[in-house]
Amino acid sequence: MAKKKTNPSESVESTPKTRKRAVKLNEKDTRTLEALNRLAQSVINAANGAGEPEMYIPSRSLSNVWFDEKKRIIQMGDRTTTRQLFNLSQAKAFMQTMLVASGTSELIRQGKTTSIRGLYYLMKHTIEHAKEETFNDQGESDPIIEDCEVLLECLREEMHLYAQTRGAMVGMIQIVDKGDTIDCARMGSGGYAVPSIVEPDVIQFKNCKADFILHVEKDTVWQRFNEDKFWKKHNCILTHGSGQPPRGMRRLLYRMNKELKLPVICLLDNDPWGYYIYSVIKQGSINLAFESKRMAIPSAKFLGLRSKDFEACGLSKSARINLNDSDRKRAKQIAEYPWFKNNKPWQQEIKLMLENGFKLEVESLISKDISYVTEIYTPQRLAAKDWLD
Amino acid sequence: MAKKKTNPSESVESTPKTRKRAVKLNEKDTRTLEALNRLAQSVINAANGAGEPEMYIPSRSLSNVWFDEKKRIIQMGDRTTTRQLFNLSQAKAFMQTMLVASGTSELIRQGKTTSIRGLYYLMKHTIEHAKEETFNDQGESDPIIEDCEVLLECLREEMHLYAQTRGAMVGMIQIVDKGDTIDCARMGSGGYAVPSIVEPDVIQFKNCKADFILHVEKDTVWQRFNEDKFWKKHNCILTHGSGQPPRGMRRLLYRMNKELKLPVICLLDNDPWGYYIYSVIKQGSINLAFESKRMAIPSAKFLGLRSKDFEACGLSKSARINLNDSDRKRAKQIAEYPWFKNNKPWQQEIKLMLENGFKLEVESLISKDISYVTEIYTPQRLAAKDWLD
Repeated sequence: MAKKKTNPSESVESTPKTRKRAVKLNEKDTRTLEALNRLAQSVINAANGAGEPEMYIPSRSLSNVWFDEKKRIIQMGDRTTTRQLFNLSQAKAFMQTMLVASGTSELIRQGKTTSIRGLYYLMKHTIEHAKEETFNDQGESDPIIEDCEVLLECLREEMHLYAQTRGAMVGMIQIVDKGDTIDCARMGSGGYAVPSIVEPDVIQFKNCKADFILHVEKDTVWQRFNEDKFWKKHNCILTHGSGQPPRGMRRLLYRMNKELKLPVICLLDNDPWGYYIYSVIKQGSINLAFESKRMAIPSAKFLGLRSKDFEACGLSKSARINLNDSDRKRAKQIAEYPWFKNNKPWQQEIKLMLENGFKLEVESLISKDISYVTEIYTPQRLAAKDWLD
Repeated sequence: MAKKKTNPSESVESTPKTRKRAVKLNEKDTRTLEALNRLAQSVINAANGAGEPEMYIPSRSLSNVWFDEKKRIIQMGDRTTTRQLFNLSQAKAFMQTMLVASGTSELIRQGKTTSIRGLYYLMKHTIEHAKEETFNDQGESDPIIEDCEVLLECLREEMHLYAQTRGAMVGMIQIVDKGDTIDCARMGSGGYAVPSIVEPDVIQFKNCKADFILHVEKDTVWQRFNEDKFWKKHNCILTHGSGQPPRGMRRLLYRMNKELKLPVICLLDNDPWGYYIYSVIKQGSINLAFESKRMAIPSAKFLGLRSKDFEACGLSKSARINLNDSDRKRAKQIAEYPWFKNNKPWQQEIKLMLENGFKLEVESLISKDISYVTEIYTPQRLAAKDWLD
């Protein structure tokens, strides 16, 4: 087969089914499809005698992850692993990588998206003349998706794959979501359900009047802030991620921080889990280091709860939850993270929690007053810029 | 202290903090507060010599739950248990009941809401001159909240308590949420995040053009339907509950079914968990039988996935997930539920799944085509009214 130049936005080899539905591609999709086509082309070239079919996948192992002190995000190193078709131990993964690449190509050409579970079902089939399945379970396809992200240097969202959604948003901004203008200042008690794919071709910002973003950990706390119209009084945007924020929420926070220059201020629990959520928002996730440069927000602040708050707010003993062994272990691990290790205020914060012997939830502030958190605690800390960086 | 008539919407004994913030009560809040005041008054009367302070709490035990064949919902029987202040084994629960009642009264008077965890913190304190806490953990306050619901015959949402939120909505309806009009036909890819409290004083319906509601199990499936604008083509409302729908979603479905006469059609997985979700939507939850009459939707339909679909849709072997022991056990339990037991189509459905030896997820239909579920499967089944009742 002769090598030929493919322009992904024009003619792409595809099944009749996909051709009939081919949509006009935007710039982002064209770019992603070009990367996918380059991958396919390299295999074609190899088949044409240019060498063995192989690819070089940037290593996602922890030993290839480092903390970039200058950019203040987690980065991946340069190490790659080779994946070869004609290697017994790598042939299946090679085939699976090509399947994932072909599945996402099909999604992009049809202008459709699916979940990572959907892609698994889309690509799973019994291999002809064999009893073997292409993928035995989703545990086999998920890492291959991550391989493709690093190999093609694009987020899975750009490959038209969505994750579960969690989290909601209200506040002084309008969002254009697939052409619909959504005024986040008129979203009642429910709010705008933040989708999984928030790339610029799907979501645009309009009419932002907010000065900052307050991101809270839990939807129950978010409801308190929304009910008290905190975002109106303090001219901000209010978000939550139902615990560890999902990719869509992190990416949206990143975009609003970068494009709209909005500071991101986090109100999380005073426990190792709250610290960890902050760490992921700020520096990125260690396991998915390759996404940090497009998701991490190094300027994010940790407003609270703080270990000093038990005394500072005059909380009663009833607000305390004793630390257990796993809390203590986790806290010590987090204190060793490179971005916390040389940060004196953070070292003091974690040390004090360990000395206290207890953790505190944001909800416990209700013991002072139902709206203490929205009317006193948060406004005072914001005014004093009393947060951890 | 002489007995005096209290009008909850006028002067209510309260701490200065709550008085300063007292809001004008609406009809629903007045009714709830009256029920709370009657409870308080009964204790005052007892203190004035009218007998021992005690209350009669409808029994929430399974033996007091029955299936109402006529209304086709789970109902509670007439049995009550007595809770007395001057009974060593009941004194703490009595005190806790009064605390929960007093906490919710405070919330209502202030026109605020909180989570059940928030209420726990609000009411938790060290009892004076004792080392004992009013509540040791939330495991003690949650059942007391349920006691108050049955005792006062009101939902926790009417006591201004909210649950976690999950689930989103789009489609041919406008919602007025706390005065904000939300057009669910213009909610982009994210949708309207359904709040926890959806009572008529918070949420009103406007301009409903939908013919029915399609409720799907998972947000990932919901995203597929929303992306394909299924709700526009088929003139409906599209909801999901991220698995077992939370109270807010169930109550909203109930209200749209009852007030707008919209049929509720469910698209869930072909597995015991999918059956169970349907059972709770339709007949109510066994553990919270008292809420059925205000949440259960006896006319709800189960569109799929069905055990026959593996053959009917010509799915490949790759779509199957083998049943495990716990699936089989659960399926047999569900087959014994009174509302399934005498329902021949349901007996066949469950029997066929057991015979198949595998379960099927809605996502697996993608192996036919990315939009098979929205363009072929669901429209065909709807047109043929091919569902289980």
